[in-house]
Amino acid sequence: MTSRDPLCGAIEAGGTKFVCTVGTSPADMREHARFPTLTPDATLRETVDFFRAAEARHGPLEAIGVASFGPIDLHLDSPTFGYITSTPKAGWANVDIAGAVRDALGIPVGFDTDVNAAALAESRWGAAQGLETFIYLTVGTGIGGGGLVNGRLMHGLVHPEMGHVRIPHDVDADPFAGICPFHGDCLEGLASGPAMNARWLRPAEQLPDDHPGWTLEARYLALALVNFVCTLSPQRIVIGGGVMSKAQLYPMVRRQVLELLNNYVRAPGILEGIDDYIVAPWLRGHAGVLGALALAQRLVREMEVEGRR
Amino acid sequence: MTSRDPLCGAIEAGGTKFVCTVGTSPADMREHARFPTLTPDATLRETVDFFRAAEARHGPLEAIGVASFGPIDLHLDSPTFGYITSTPKAGWANVDIAGAVRDALGIPVGFDTDVNAAALAESRWGAAQGLETFIYLTVGTGIGGGGLVNGRLMHGLVHPEMGHVRIPHDVDADPFAGICPFHGDCLEGLASGPAMNARWLRPAEQLPDDHPGWTLEARYLALALVNFVCTLSPQRIVIGGGVMSKAQLYPMVRRQVLELLNNYVRAPGILEGIDDYIVAPWLRGHAGVLGALALAQRLVREMEVEGRR
Repeated sequence: MTSRDPLCGAIEAGGTKFVCTVGTSPADMREHARFPTLTPDATLRETVDFFRAAEARHGPLEAIGVASFGPIDLHLDSPTFGYITSTPKAGWANVDIAGAVRDALGIPVGFDTDVNAAALAESRWGAAQGLETFIYLTVGTGIGGGGLVNGRLMHGLVHPEMGHVRIPHDVDADPFAGICPFHGDCLEGLASGPAMNARWLRPAEQLPDDHPGWTLEARYLALALVNFVCTLSPQRIVIGGGVMSKAQLYPMVRRQVLELLNNYVRAPGILEGIDDYIVAPWLRGHAGVLGALALAQRLVREMEVEGRR
Repeated sequence: MTSRDPLCGAIEAGGTKFVCTVGTSPADMREHARFPTLTPDATLRETVDFFRAAEARHGPLEAIGVASFGPIDLHLDSPTFGYITSTPKAGWANVDIAGAVRDALGIPVGFDTDVNAAALAESRWGAAQGLETFIYLTVGTGIGGGGLVNGRLMHGLVHPEMGHVRIPHDVDADPFAGICPFHGDCLEGLASGPAMNARWLRPAEQLPDDHPGWTLEARYLALALVNFVCTLSPQRIVIGGGVMSKAQLYPMVRRQVLELLNNYVRAPGILEGIDDYIVAPWLRGHAGVLGALALAQRLVREMEVEGRR
C-alpha cells in the first residue's frame, strides 16, 4: 500500500470469465476489463491486448499475476509448470496459460490457484492480515479452498481440493445423491450452489430464509470446517462465495461448528471468539483479481531479494 | 548423523509410559529408560534422575526434547507454553511438563506433540526424508496426526487433532456408534484400536485376516486419508501405530484411497506410485523418542543460528 508497491498486471482466469486489472494496490487500480472465457487462443489474445494497451498508457508492468481455475501445475521444476492440466472445460486442458502470458508480454508471471491467490489477497489486505496459518474457502458454483500454512501458500503434491472432502451424509434426512461427477456426495456434490439448485429445484438465492435447506447447508459446511480445524488447526477460516452471500449462514455455520467440536479443541479463539474465527472475506468479489495482483507483487519482491531484478 | 550432532536427551511422554534416551543419533543412543506414567511428581522425578545420572556418565546434554501426549500448549508467547492442557489423564491436566524438565536440569527444552515429533524423526531419519509437506498418522489406542507443511511442523491455532475428523459412517453397514467421548463416531471413535475392540468384542490383533473388520477399518482410514489429501495435498502419508501392524491393511487402504479419489487428483505420485505414497514409518516404535531427540537437536541448531549458544 506504499508508493513503492510495483505497478503490476493481474488476471483472474475463471472458467466463465477472465477479469484483468492493472495497478499497485486495491486503492490504486487503474484499468479493468472482463472477457468471456472462450477458446484459449481468443481469450488469451484479448487479455494480452488489454495489457499491451494498459502499458502504453501507464508504463511498463513489472510482473503479471495469474490466479487460475484448475487443476493446475504449480511445480516450478515441472515441464508443465504454469499449465491448466485436467479441467473438464472444453479446450482448456493442458494449456500453458502462464507461459502464454509471459511469452506475449515479456515480463515475469506469478501463478497459483484462484483460491490460493484470493487467500493471499485476504492475507495482505483483508480478513486474514497477520495470520501465519488460515484457510480461505469459497462456496459457489464449485467449492474450493486454499490458504497459508506457516506463512506460505498451500501447495504440496498438487494443491488443495478442499471441495472434494467426504463428509457424513445422512441419506434418511437428505436422500439427495450429490452432483459431483467424480465423487457423488463429497462436499461440493452436496453443498455447492448447483447442488442446492438440483436438490431444491430452484437457485439457492430463491430459498426463503426459513427453508430447511439452509440448516442442511450450514450442517454440511460445518462438518467440512470441523475437519479442516482438526486437520490444519487454522488461526481463522475465511469463507465466502455466492452461496455465502446469504448472510444468515454465518451464525448457523458457527453454531454447528461449536456443536460438532463439542469443546474438544479448547482454544479461546474458537470457544470465545467464534464470530471472529469463521468470517466473511473482506475483499468479496475482488479477492481473485487482487490475489493475482498480490501474486505479481510477491514475485517482484522475491526477484528483488534474489537479485534477479 | 555426523559427529557434530549434539548430545541431547529425549523424552517420549505418553499417557501410559515415559520413554527416555540420551544420544546423538539413531545409531548412537547411549542410555534408555522407561517409566510408567503415574503422578506428574513421581514420573517427572524419575525422568530427571535418569538424565542427571546419564549426564554424570556421558557429559552434559545440550538440550532435551519432549514429545508429549496432549492436548498441549505450543504457543511460545503463551503463559502456559510447554503445558499439557486439558487431558482426561488424571492429574496431568495443566501440568508444566517442559518447564519442570528445564528447571530441574537447567538446559533448554524443545517441546511438541508426540505425533509432530515422530513426523520430524521420520523427516530426518525415516520415511519422509526430503519432503516439505507430508502427514504422519498413528492408529493405535488413539488416532493422532502431525506432519510438516512447507518444511515446518504443523501448529496453527493449537495443533492438529486428525483423529477427530468426521467421516461418512454407514450405520446400516456398521451400526456401531463409535467410542469417542466427545464425538461418538469421529475417525478415532470408529477406527482406533479400542473402537475395533469394542465393535468386535476382542482385540484387533485377534481378528483373523479375512475378518470383515479389516475391510471396514481400511475403509474408514481411506476416507480420512482422502480428506487429508484433498485438504493438504501431502507429498506422502506415513501411517503407523499398533493397528497398522496388521500389514495387510496397507494394500487395502491404498486400494480404497484410489477408489475414493476416483482419478480426481491426477498426480503421478498417487496414480502411479500409491505404494510409495501411503507408507509405513521406518522408525516404527522408536519414532516418538527419536522425534524428541530431533526436537532437542533442532533447538540446539536454532540457538546456534540465533547466536544464543
